[in-house]
Amino acid sequence: MNLKIFDRMESEVRGYIRSFPTLFDKARGSTLIDEANNSYIDFFAGAGTLNYGHNNPVIKQDLMNYLEADGVIHGLDMATVAKKEMLEALDRIILKPRGMNYKLQFPGPTGTNAVEAALKLARLVKGRSNIVSFTHGFHGVTGGSLAATANSKYRDAAGTSLDNTTFMPYDGYLGEGVDTTEYLERMIADRSSGMDHPAAVIVETVQGEGGVNVASAAWLRALEQVCRRQDMLLIVDDIQMGCGRTGRFFSFEESGISPDIVTLSKSISAFGLPMALVLMKPELDVWTPGAHNGTFRGNNLAFVTARAALLHYWSDDAFQETVRRKGIIMRNWLEHIAADYPSGEFGVRGRGMIQGLAAADETLADRIARRCFEKGLVIETSGADDVLKLMPALTIDEKLLCQGLDIIEDSVADVLGVPRLQGRDRKIKYINFRAAR
Amino acid sequence: MNLKIFDRMESEVRGYIRSFPTLFDKARGSTLIDEANNSYIDFFAGAGTLNYGHNNPVIKQDLMNYLEADGVIHGLDMATVAKKEMLEALDRIILKPRGMNYKLQFPGPTGTNAVEAALKLARLVKGRSNIVSFTHGFHGVTGGSLAATANSKYRDAAGTSLDNTTFMPYDGYLGEGVDTTEYLERMIADRSSGMDHPAAVIVETVQGEGGVNVASAAWLRALEQVCRRQDMLLIVDDIQMGCGRTGRFFSFEESGISPDIVTLSKSISAFGLPMALVLMKPELDVWTPGAHNGTFRGNNLAFVTARAALLHYWSDDAFQETVRRKGIIMRNWLEHIAADYPSGEFGVRGRGMIQGLAAADETLADRIARRCFEKGLVIETSGADDVLKLMPALTIDEKLLCQGLDIIEDSVADVLGVPRLQGRDRKIKYINFRAAR
Amino acid sequence: MNLKIFDRMESEVRGYIRSFPTLFDKARGSTLIDEANNSYIDFFAGAGTLNYGHNNPVIKQDLMNYLEADGVIHGLDMATVAKKEMLEALDRIILKPRGMNYKLQFPGPTGTNAVEAALKLARLVKGRSNIVSFTHGFHGVTGGSLAATANSKYRDAAGTSLDNTTFMPYDGYLGEGVDTTEYLERMIADRSSGMDHPAAVIVETVQGEGGVNVASAAWLRALEQVCRRQDMLLIVDDIQMGCGRTGRFFSFEESGISPDIVTLSKSISAFGLPMALVLMKPELDVWTPGAHNGTFRGNNLAFVTARAALLHYWSDDAFQETVRRKGIIMRNWLEHIAADYPSGEFGVRGRGMIQGLAAADETLADRIARRCFEKGLVIETSGADDVLKLMPALTIDEKLLCQGLDIIEDSVADVLGVPRLQGRDRKIKYINFRAAR
Amino acid sequence: MNLKIFDRMESEVRGYIRSFPTLFDKARGSTLIDEANNSYIDFFAGAGTLNYGHNNPVIKQDLMNYLEADGVIHGLDMATVAKKEMLEALDRIILKPRGMNYKLQFPGPTGTNAVEAALKLARLVKGRSNIVSFTHGFHGVTGGSLAATANSKYRDAAGTSLDNTTFMPYDGYLGEGVDTTEYLERMIADRSSGMDHPAAVIVETVQGEGGVNVASAAWLRALEQVCRRQDMLLIVDDIQMGCGRTGRFFSFEESGISPDIVTLSKSISAFGLPMALVLMKPELDVWTPGAHNGTFRGNNLAFVTARAALLHYWSDDAFQETVRRKGIIMRNWLEHIAADYPSGEFGVRGRGMIQGLAAADETLADRIARRCFEKGLVIETSGADDVLKLMPALTIDEKLLCQGLDIIEDSVADVLGVPRLQGRDRKIKYINFRAAR
Repeated sequence: MNLKIFDRMESEVRGYIRSFPTLFDKARGSTLIDEANNSYIDFFAGAGTLNYGHNNPVIKQDLMNYLEADGVIHGLDMATVAKKEMLEALDRIILKPRGMNYKLQFPGPTGTNAVEAALKLARLVKGRSNIVSFTHGFHGVTGGSLAATANSKYRDAAGTSLDNTTFMPYDGYLGEGVDTTEYLERMIADRSSGMDHPAAVIVETVQGEGGVNVASAAWLRALEQVCRRQDMLLIVDDIQMGCGRTGRFFSFEESGISPDIVTLSKSISAFGLPMALVLMKPELDVWTPGAHNGTFRGNNLAFVTARAALLHYWSDDAFQETVRRKGIIMRNWLEHIAADYPSGEFGVRGRGMIQGLAAADETLADRIARRCFEKGLVIETSGADDVLKLMPALTIDEKLLCQGLDIIEDSVADVLGVPRLQGRDRKIKYINFRAAR
Repeated sequence: MNLKIFDRMESEVRGYIRSFPTLFDKARGSTLIDEANNSYIDFFAGAGTLNYGHNNPVIKQDLMNYLEADGVIHGLDMATVAKKEMLEALDRIILKPRGMNYKLQFPGPTGTNAVEAALKLARLVKGRSNIVSFTHGFHGVTGGSLAATANSKYRDAAGTSLDNTTFMPYDGYLGEGVDTTEYLERMIADRSSGMDHPAAVIVETVQGEGGVNVASAAWLRALEQVCRRQDMLLIVDDIQMGCGRTGRFFSFEESGISPDIVTLSKSISAFGLPMALVLMKPELDVWTPGAHNGTFRGNNLAFVTARAALLHYWSDDAFQETVRRKGIIMRNWLEHIAADYPSGEFGVRGRGMIQGLAAADETLADRIARRCFEKGLVIETSGADDVLKLMPALTIDEKLLCQGLDIIEDSVADVLGVPRLQGRDRKIKYINFRAAR
Repeated sequence: MNLKIFDRMESEVRGYIRSFPTLFDKARGSTLIDEANNSYIDFFAGAGTLNYGHNNPVIKQDLMNYLEADGVIHGLDMATVAKKEMLEALDRIILKPRGMNYKLQFPGPTGTNAVEAALKLARLVKGRSNIVSFTHGFHGVTGGSLAATANSKYRDAAGTSLDNTTFMPYDGYLGEGVDTTEYLERMIADRSSGMDHPAAVIVETVQGEGGVNVASAAWLRALEQVCRRQDMLLIVDDIQMGCGRTGRFFSFEESGISPDIVTLSKSISAFGLPMALVLMKPELDVWTPGAHNGTFRGNNLAFVTARAALLHYWSDDAFQETVRRKGIIMRNWLEHIAADYPSGEFGVRGRGMIQGLAAADETLADRIARRCFEKGLVIETSGADDVLKLMPALTIDEKLLCQGLDIIEDSVADVLGVPRLQGRDRKIKYINFRAAR
Repeated sequence: MNLKIFDRMESEVRGYIRSFPTLFDKARGSTLIDEANNSYIDFFAGAGTLNYGHNNPVIKQDLMNYLEADGVIHGLDMATVAKKEMLEALDRIILKPRGMNYKLQFPGPTGTNAVEAALKLARLVKGRSNIVSFTHGFHGVTGGSLAATANSKYRDAAGTSLDNTTFMPYDGYLGEGVDTTEYLERMIADRSSGMDHPAAVIVETVQGEGGVNVASAAWLRALEQVCRRQDMLLIVDDIQMGCGRTGRFFSFEESGISPDIVTLSKSISAFGLPMALVLMKPELDVWTPGAHNGTFRGNNLAFVTARAALLHYWSDDAFQETVRRKGIIMRNWLEHIAADYPSGEFGVRGRGMIQGLAAADETLADRIARRCFEKGLVIETSGADDVLKLMPALTIDEKLLCQGLDIIEDSVADVLGVPRLQGRDRKIKYINFRAAR
């Protein structure tokens, strides 16, 4: 595959082209096809952007119709029919049934822009500049978000110091049984701890980029209580984990918490089109007109596709149920791998259809991912590149899902240099195995 | 027009819906159509995003074809055919003929993300954190860019202090005949001025958001010389002024300068689709893989439309010539308005097809813009809202252009409460009047 | 006592005049005398500045001689005989016998200026800006030091955000048995923790202002090991705890650690004269001439008195032994108070001649201190004003020490509203009781 | 002279010992005597700390008496008789006769600590963080002050970025006839200039460290007006120029401005003892008790000497008159040097008894200073080391003053390699020459 022009013309900053060195041409559902007509199963899903798969036909039809009719494509934050209909659908299908009362802000159409807006708003509301973020948290790489992003790979590229954020240990960081929200609250309540009173806490319910770390529902509830007692806003960054990834539309629904601000992006447009949203409780809406702007804050094509997905997938619970079921398949398969290939010293973690296979040896996950690609599976690692991160489209066919899992098991065996275990049909077995989690 | 759902569900931060309070439905070329089937001439062009008009059919066809063929829509920075072909077109049509040698970075698909990447890169290259920006400069509102954005409306919304930027007077800020680059250089060369040695200067050749302030070619050259002598990178933020707005593809071509880094966004996708680019001289490409990322950094639909526009409009000089010609019409018309309606105390400034009518009375421009909208023209103000900013699509039909200018003159007369001058055919007159600028 | 002129002319920032509202006139040893000739026992010792008592005659004689001889009083960092002789004494009496190899810097003559210099130096040496400081740490209130000071009373007065410092839990902060250096090291070693790699750790061996919190020798050694493994400098701020307060000249001697940088001030001049020192390992001396300066960085009178104290008190171990003995008296007495007045729920902590009586009820310590003053004892509280802080001159006569302790016990009984226990001669008892700590 | 111990034990940061490499022993008035009994005329005066000369006998007597009587030496901000009497003297002799109503704050006893307090107070009062400082301004090197200090020698040593300060051109910086306060006001009034609304302006009336740059009275008045119109506090840093250096007690008296906050240090103690003061208009005193502190904020010996100087030198106008007269001698002599030695391309600037001889060649001043030292005159350079800075004690005998000036002229001739001009008695001539300034 001739990738020379990328070597010559694209900055060294390019990344995934190095992990998946081929020239992709077409894509349908969970299948990527390259220029040489090779097919790949996609367990990457645009880093969580393609929860409904590539070129989802249900969604695409609305998009084509809109284009053919010369609908408004770009309109900043002017009112358009497409935007109006998206707002109505979001309200009717998502917010109202959940008893949620949020106003919406359309920042620039990327997750980091949503985080920037959320952090600004929290600071304006509380009149304080400090923000609590967590170990291994990822919230984007523009200046404001980057300060709340933990990974030094990104931080060191800032070229300035990154201030006004205090990092606290995420759930589990201090080991089993240590409730890290107690430490957090102690630091805040103690006026001599050195921690300046934060305006807000920003948190992911599952840290996707950070290594598939899962916060328990109890921890999230404890965190919410700390926010209430210590007069801080609770911001859930649901950019990667929202839109059904963990089962329900919002990843925090199961925990029962009620965030003050929620950020959405990635799969909210449902078709891979750039879009981002900030949801805020109405009483927090202290914005003045235009104080936070962005040229592409009204991506009408994304409104059209977002609405199509809401109508098709979220009008009832059927879709969620398929996610739950496929999540269990993934989890079970991984746990069997962990049990069956002890030399990998694997751990398994995740929620719903985000699952991670954590390896003790820090190069292992990377080698497995590379082997997977050779075998036709697109999959990435996260954390300190020590966790194989499974994030297929939520719409993936169960058979294809199992094929992908099979490739992972094959690759694990290959890389560990041990024989692949029996060729039993794991799929049937695991689907029938319902104890999970 | 029922906009109630926006009042109820959209944050107070919404802006243009207040200036143009109707529900837009369709759009073609330079015409916007609302739900009640009212037509509006568009002198706003998505704040510079729609240089080729709405739903440009030439470009749209390629987009439809790509969608129909299930081309890859979203791929982060994986290699795709669409991306490859865009790179080739950009290289062949734009860079090579201009003798430019730049590598490309694809940040998140908004202007501010490109600026963030550019500023990081400059700081990394030079190992210094200070950046020179200019009075009235606008570079976006995410944390890093916002520090380089001058307007307090945006700055005050940060909720933190904005550091590592020194603002210097833009060309003309200290009055006629004062070369502000001398002051800049003095401050830098003087190691006791208090100015920390900057890594780079970031500048717009015309400040669109800042009030249509035009830097002279001589000033830009002087600025470049200061950068060379004082070991700083020169970053041209060509997000609004690039892609033909001032006549040539890059707004800095006429001046002959050779920026180290160039940011592009807005009209680079040519169809209103989110996309942003950073061009950097190859020797500056010190990025490590993935150190600056973003989910939508590969918006393949935008690659398709960008390429279509390059092929169609930039393969020869014909398009540029139409821009030049229409720019003269705009300029002449405005200068006649300034001369014919002296009570407005108008000044005219601009380059190519970005022109501003600056009013002494700071509410005047705003009232004119509102009157224009009532008469069917979408137009915005900029600066301290004291400058009527004309930024029609570059593809606008000359007749429609003149209709729009006519509405402006009508609105000026209305708002000033003076009679509209003679109904002569200004178009013919002004086209024949070639002395301009 | 007429203090009206202070009310009228001195800023509301004044503090101790409120705790000890009288007009002091004379002072000798551990006795303060006010204008009305009332005597007070001094358990405050200038917040640790008067380790050798007021107007110590041994030291004063040298000072008077120097003045009479027209010695140089002020000389910035010009060489003077007084400075030379102080350097020689420090080298011979303190550094050499301890096998310490430090170079000296004379910053502005206050503790905070020494901390500023130390932090700058650490940042310059390591080329990083982050510093680790600890909960309840106090290092001064000028901009650089304030960022490393934990108490919000001081931080909130900055009027800016205070950056480039990460606060970590001090020894004991997370409860008995939790080694907080493990958490510290984890945060540093984990490149995704969000903690930017620090240049240095700054620590007090006993937090005087922070509430008389004592770091164990084991914890200090563990901290030093973290610094070594994680490539950070170890700065001991020995401003209040140095110069014999905890027994030996430096407070860290017992732990066996070897700090890279040590700050000294307060009692280093031995007579209440402003002076501050930074000790640095020679290989860290990357300063360029004059890069950190200060008008009073050569307070020659302080050099004279500092030298006199070194010669008189530190040439052998006799003085240290008296400190040890008096420290035991203090500790024992306090522990008996804690045991005998259980309704106060007192805890006792300290090392050598800095001891604290911590009260559960947060207003209790303050009320006891006020009662003490009424009874003729000058004593302050620290921490969140919940710890009675005993810090008499090291030279205090044992009888006077016991009188002061007796006043404390009386005041405790008064404030708790319980009868004072038996009038036994505690002094004899406690001196004979040698099990301490 | 054996300075080896300094080489071995003192940090490379040491500075003046390099300019004046001898071991000073005694000092009286304007004479320094080294260990080898060499005498030096002192035109340096402790960088402005010794306005009343070394070991001034009038002042010293009070100091000795106080010591002999066991007066309180150190008392933080407890009330003492010495402090009370100093306050009374300052009020009666300085403030009242000038109609000034200021409250006093005693920060740590160095100039930079006073500046830190002043900046904090201004930020707290206005609730904003930005401060305007000026090109070539020097305000100290602790974190907060350093941000307002212009010289990169000091700034580069911070090891962090220095924020929240905007540097503006000082009087004369943009050339003759350019009123730089107009630019300042424009930047502030223009809400799109990029300058965040400052809380205060901090300014020196003459920039001593910055190269003896003199602000005109008209400029200072214009600056005050900008502060009033733009709602900013005016802080005069009178640390080096106050206490009579320019003629009157405060350096700003002649201009008629009324600063909101004034910082004093250096010669306020009158004897070389560390002391610093912040004067603030009473309505600005928003401090809470103890929010800004410092161990040596009550240096009672300095109170004693400060009072002695106030009583002796400032009770009437006689002393000021001698300063005026000696200032004219200095100025005239320098102007003759400038005229008589044209190859040096000298400029002369200053006010009262701070005068500078500015050389075009940047190494010239330094070579002259070194030659002066060889000839027995202690004198320093300032600015970019291109200005010979004359700052003798205000009490210097006219004959000694002329001897010093004579040495300068000799050294100028030597260094330029031209013959010394006629041996006429310049003193008589210049004293009788009264046109000056």
